[in-house]
Amino acid sequence: MVDIRRPIPVSEAIGRLMAHVPAPRVETAALADSFGRVLAEPVVARGDVPPFHRAAYDGYAIRSEDTESADERNRASFRVVGRIAAGETRDRELGPGEAVRIMTGAPLPPGADAVVMLEQAVRDADGRSFAVRKAFRAWENVSLRGEDVREGETVVEPGSVIHPGVVALLATFGYAHVRVAKRPVVGVIATGSELVGVDEPLAPGKIRDSNGPMIMAQLARIGIPSRSYGIMRDDPDRCFELVRRALSETDCVITTGGASVGDFDWLPAICERLGAKVLFNKVAMRPGSVTTAAVADGKLLFGLSGNPSACYVGFEIFARPALLRMAGSRKPYPAYARAELAEDYPKANPFTRFVRAVYRHDGHRPVVAPAGFDKSNAVGSLARSNALMALPGGTRGFGKGTEVDVLLPGAEDGEA
Amino acid sequence: MVDIRRPIPVSEAIGRLMAHVPAPRVETAALADSFGRVLAEPVVARGDVPPFHRAAYDGYAIRSEDTESADERNRASFRVVGRIAAGETRDRELGPGEAVRIMTGAPLPPGADAVVMLEQAVRDADGRSFAVRKAFRAWENVSLRGEDVREGETVVEPGSVIHPGVVALLATFGYAHVRVAKRPVVGVIATGSELVGVDEPLAPGKIRDSNGPMIMAQLARIGIPSRSYGIMRDDPDRCFELVRRALSETDCVITTGGASVGDFDWLPAICERLGAKVLFNKVAMRPGSVTTAAVADGKLLFGLSGNPSACYVGFEIFARPALLRMAGSRKPYPAYARAELAEDYPKANPFTRFVRAVYRHDGHRPVVAPAGFDKSNAVGSLARSNALMALPGGTRGFGKGTEVDVLLPGAEDGEA
Repeated sequence: MVDIRRPIPVSEAIGRLMAHVPAPRVETAALADSFGRVLAEPVVARGDVPPFHRAAYDGYAIRSEDTESADERNRASFRVVGRIAAGETRDRELGPGEAVRIMTGAPLPPGADAVVMLEQAVRDADGRSFAVRKAFRAWENVSLRGEDVREGETVVEPGSVIHPGVVALLATFGYAHVRVAKRPVVGVIATGSELVGVDEPLAPGKIRDSNGPMIMAQLARIGIPSRSYGIMRDDPDRCFELVRRALSETDCVITTGGASVGDFDWLPAICERLGAKVLFNKVAMRPGSVTTAAVADGKLLFGLSGNPSACYVGFEIFARPALLRMAGSRKPYPAYARAELAEDYPKANPFTRFVRAVYRHDGHRPVVAPAGFDKSNAVGSLARSNALMALPGGTRGFGKGTEVDVLLPGAEDGEA
Repeated sequence: MVDIRRPIPVSEAIGRLMAHVPAPRVETAALADSFGRVLAEPVVARGDVPPFHRAAYDGYAIRSEDTESADERNRASFRVVGRIAAGETRDRELGPGEAVRIMTGAPLPPGADAVVMLEQAVRDADGRSFAVRKAFRAWENVSLRGEDVREGETVVEPGSVIHPGVVALLATFGYAHVRVAKRPVVGVIATGSELVGVDEPLAPGKIRDSNGPMIMAQLARIGIPSRSYGIMRDDPDRCFELVRRALSETDCVITTGGASVGDFDWLPAICERLGAKVLFNKVAMRPGSVTTAAVADGKLLFGLSGNPSACYVGFEIFARPALLRMAGSRKPYPAYARAELAEDYPKANPFTRFVRAVYRHDGHRPVVAPAGFDKSNAVGSLARSNALMALPGGTRGFGKGTEVDVLLPGAEDGEA
């Protein structure tokens, strides 16, 4: 089946796709398993933070009025009448000239409205009394009840990823369980009679499947579970059966290879037999122009190129945002930056180009350079890159020093 | 035990710490489990990529010399004498005027040195012959053997994180297993008599432990496995026993709380009883100045603050790079950026300040703003932030529009 396909712009393809993403389903996660999940409920403050006026430092709880006229020469003296450790409380009201030894985080006793830090106290030898050499303001060295978060306040919106700071907040408010979006499970099928598995011997004309493992790593990077359906030879009937089975067992299917226009490109026929609605099958981009997206029985089916670089880009530009949206995210697109091109990129192309690139901050500004050999079948540059330059289509190349758009699909790399 | 500690600069503290990080140990990971691990061996090309001259497009393999004088009027004609699907080979040498139907990725037959794309061929009705209207260069539409990667080349260095592109490369070269650095297992102990667990009821003076779950999420974010040792009351002997047990069962121990200078701050005493070498116990930074790092029996012991923001920052600045270095990484520090301050930050501080912040790209440039209330005990701003501004110590604040350093410990957020 050979047909001429009309390419559509990247943004139009994304628009068609995102309009067909199934709504997220919701489940409950234990707090300990919630990192990286997407909130399906707001995090609402179930109490004030701090929950009581608490000592910000180790020291002595006092009544600030008792220090009103204190200075270096007229010290104000206090008797230590008790002690409150963190986790303890004290009900007895503080009287004039009385102080209570208090630990960081402990609740102030009734009547107290300031804390003298240990190093601010001139202590007597017996530890039962001390003096201060300055006036204390009301609530000095005290964390006020509710100053951080007020009961009833919505602190984090649904659709946000649960990062470590959100985990801390959930723990604070006693969310032992939290409602999160369900993560879609993705079936991955690599197709092509030329492919052998990673542990199989090579034969003439054969290459090892790199797209299957790569796609599963791209899914793992965004926290999406996957199931491998292995390598499929170019056999239309068996391909059809495998895709149908994978669609019935998972929430979304990604195939690699078989998406072009050769004699053994079987995806159009499969879509037809499935009764799938094809959203697009050619996009005005390089690499990855032969990416297909379709909807079958309400489930998304992606046909990515068999060329590794094209496959990688097709995933990041299309499958990633669709899957993260299914997983509940309000921010499903790769992180964006702008950076200075560190070398000339003379190749002009009428299509939008996503160049595998190395992005780094040189201490003054972000810079980006192509990761090397960048044909659609390249795998070496994929391994060396940490970013994609997004270069608009046109009739001219891009000169060194030009500021260009950069997509940052992963953040495995830190700084040296 | 109350002592006055002398603060050291952040960089000096990091230097002392990194000098005491145990060398990474090595283990073998299956390719399917290798994503996110750190390479303990170089990825060396075990063959050329592509492994043979291959068709870059679907079309016809020909001898370019047969098209030497072809143009619109003098078309060169070819007889189709066979066909090579991907994964197949053909041994028979191509003769003059002969062509072979070839699929993308298939090896060129002997004698062929160019591919006519389907849309470049004027085909006869029977499909057995076609003509071309232009001269083809040698190797036109062909991916040359080794043009991407040459056999024997080191493509990725040890110490690199295995991201999806590296997975693709490993698969290409048949690395069914790969040598990776072992990840340290970290024991986490939250201390403080004021703490209760996330599913326990609150009582007066009590708060829920947020640091334990937060630290475990911070560890999960960098791919480091952890084991919770629960919540420990302020009891020096039992604390000592628990830390000793955790050190014997894990590769590194992180405690939260008990690191300050109050009556119930037990970490200095524990370090002494363990015979641990204290690397630092006070750092010239806010928050997190009371962070402790020590080495006991060759294992790292971190004492982080009990205040959530201070605990968070202490982890990212110290524990994170040490653990990632233990896990083999050459780039263990949080990703770095510079951004324009979106609002005034008037608070001056003699110490380096790490402010929980919201970092984003506004389409023109990266901007950053404080995430709100930023005392060391704050948890609300932790939940709202995705970055840390690193502001140098000094006597003045920072005005809106100033360019400041930003650390990006996580990349959970994409773009909306």
